[in-house]
Amino acid sequence: MVRGALHEGGRLLAALARWMEVPLQALAADPLPSWNEGTVKHAIIDFVTRATTEGDAGFVPVEARIATFDNDGTLWPEQPLVQGAFLLKPLRSRVKEDPTLSKRQPFKAILEGDLSELSLMDKARLTKLLGETHAGMTEEAFIRDVRTFFQNARHPRWDVPYNQLAYAPMLELLRYLRANGFQTWLASAGGIDFMRVISEATYGIPPQQVIGSQLKKSLDEAHAPSVLRREARVSHVNDKAGKPVGIDEHIGRRPVFAAGNVRSGGDIQMLQYTRKRGCPGFALLIHHDDAVREFAYEENDGASLKAARQGGWTVVSMQRDWRRIFDGTRVPDENGGG
Amino acid sequence: MVRGALHEGGRLLAALARWMEVPLQALAADPLPSWNEGTVKHAIIDFVTRATTEGDAGFVPVEARIATFDNDGTLWPEQPLVQGAFLLKPLRSRVKEDPTLSKRQPFKAILEGDLSELSLMDKARLTKLLGETHAGMTEEAFIRDVRTFFQNARHPRWDVPYNQLAYAPMLELLRYLRANGFQTWLASAGGIDFMRVISEATYGIPPQQVIGSQLKKSLDEAHAPSVLRREARVSHVNDKAGKPVGIDEHIGRRPVFAAGNVRSGGDIQMLQYTRKRGCPGFALLIHHDDAVREFAYEENDGASLKAARQGGWTVVSMQRDWRRIFDGTRVPDENGGG
Repeated sequence: MVRGALHEGGRLLAALARWMEVPLQALAADPLPSWNEGTVKHAIIDFVTRATTEGDAGFVPVEARIATFDNDGTLWPEQPLVQGAFLLKPLRSRVKEDPTLSKRQPFKAILEGDLSELSLMDKARLTKLLGETHAGMTEEAFIRDVRTFFQNARHPRWDVPYNQLAYAPMLELLRYLRANGFQTWLASAGGIDFMRVISEATYGIPPQQVIGSQLKKSLDEAHAPSVLRREARVSHVNDKAGKPVGIDEHIGRRPVFAAGNVRSGGDIQMLQYTRKRGCPGFALLIHHDDAVREFAYEENDGASLKAARQGGWTVVSMQRDWRRIFDGTRVPDENGGG
Repeated sequence: MVRGALHEGGRLLAALARWMEVPLQALAADPLPSWNEGTVKHAIIDFVTRATTEGDAGFVPVEARIATFDNDGTLWPEQPLVQGAFLLKPLRSRVKEDPTLSKRQPFKAILEGDLSELSLMDKARLTKLLGETHAGMTEEAFIRDVRTFFQNARHPRWDVPYNQLAYAPMLELLRYLRANGFQTWLASAGGIDFMRVISEATYGIPPQQVIGSQLKKSLDEAHAPSVLRREARVSHVNDKAGKPVGIDEHIGRRPVFAAGNVRSGGDIQMLQYTRKRGCPGFALLIHHDDAVREFAYEENDGASLKAARQGGWTVVSMQRDWRRIFDGTRVPDENGGG
């Protein structure tokens, strides 16, 4: 048994050595090739370098290297909201049961194919809509529905599955942070169970590191094995002031790195929450200013950019700071450098 | 830079090789030395061996190797309930504000030093009590209070700090599972923030892998940096049918291994939840039958043992299956083999 164990150990060691090659190459090469050179890219690399340099004032112990990312508009496009597109089919079923719904907003617009209504929609209302369309469903059945959606649905502009539209620079950033001992988390206003289905394959983030809005669930013990059923009640809206609450509930400590985006002010509190006395937190705010390669939109009251100025956050201009938006092998990038 | 990176890589590789020695030794030696030989120990080792053997019918892919552990009575003693002992001081302060409380139960018994009242107490009531004693407190202040408690309080029988009373056989089991790729989680009816303070040092379980009962919290943005405050409302009781709900919320998948104990039936649903169609889950139920070395107590309706028989769970007799209960260097173990 000892010999077997040593042999096993030798194989593991060889596997580890092979696995080491990736970080070694990453160290030698540019870890963020989809980012243009400039203050933003340098600020990120500087933060990570100091966070991992013992003795530096910016050093962060491994257990505190927690990074949280908003999803819609930060890791993939939010026009239309992906979860809104997912709701189309069950919404149609609901309207069959109750035709009066088809005259009410947002049902009316969505059913007429106007997904822009969804982009404008409040996340709390979207979550509520999900409660109405998926109440009583078992966890397993819901997950099957989400899988089917991602297999079949296509983004109206690029005609590829939604989860192939993850921003290439952000995927690099996630990998770069993880290669430096950071644990990466999703902290989205979207539904937790919706994102968990694709978070690992799309972002390398396992389901247990996803935080999102939630419906109340209850255990149905009538049959074996017991199942969880979704109720029509929203138990947590992971947006605005709800984000630090969700982060505390799932992680139990403040992130030292957080990324969000300009649109609704939904990430302001999360980004502020990373800045703790005596701890050098990093806040990244993405500005959608690239109508050619993605979308350009502003925030009505400009609250996110104002908070960024006050808090000393790093603001990303998609147009200026990103060499390419999408992975060129998956998305035809006509105007970008991909 | 390349040379520096390679040098760095070499150092990392050497560190990894040193780190590897621990699992190598663990493979060669008995991974569970505090467990007596017998059907229980063999069932555990058989499950883990098969879960990690590719091609075996019991193989479990690494990402599905999730193990959840109840805390009170499963990982450490629950007489008295540790969190109950923690409540003594704030309870006394509350009674000063409102003297009528001292005439009501459980306040009366607890204040007279009768902690047995706490052992009998329903977890939901205990959580509510916590709401009453700690409402309005910031997260940071609460954590400081818990730290102070663990530094000063002593168990009435063994006269050592409570967190030195973790069961030695269970600490070995946690390490054994982790060495085999399992992610270990705490799924307790106790308060999530209470356990997070000591979970890493006591069990090797980081705060983000702790699931427990919760109070509602809200973000107080009045001052910078923003803080979370505890409200007097319970938002989740992580007991009985609440355990699978809490596990789903935090992990997003069914555990394949779960451990609980006999007392109140609080772990039945969690243990049932590990047994999914087509997945070889392992359920461990600890029976407190050792009055000499720890405590002996039964469950009023015998529901846990009955569920164990029906579900084919593995039942641990502390008297028969555990060679020692505590770490002998920390707790004088007069009657055990430690």
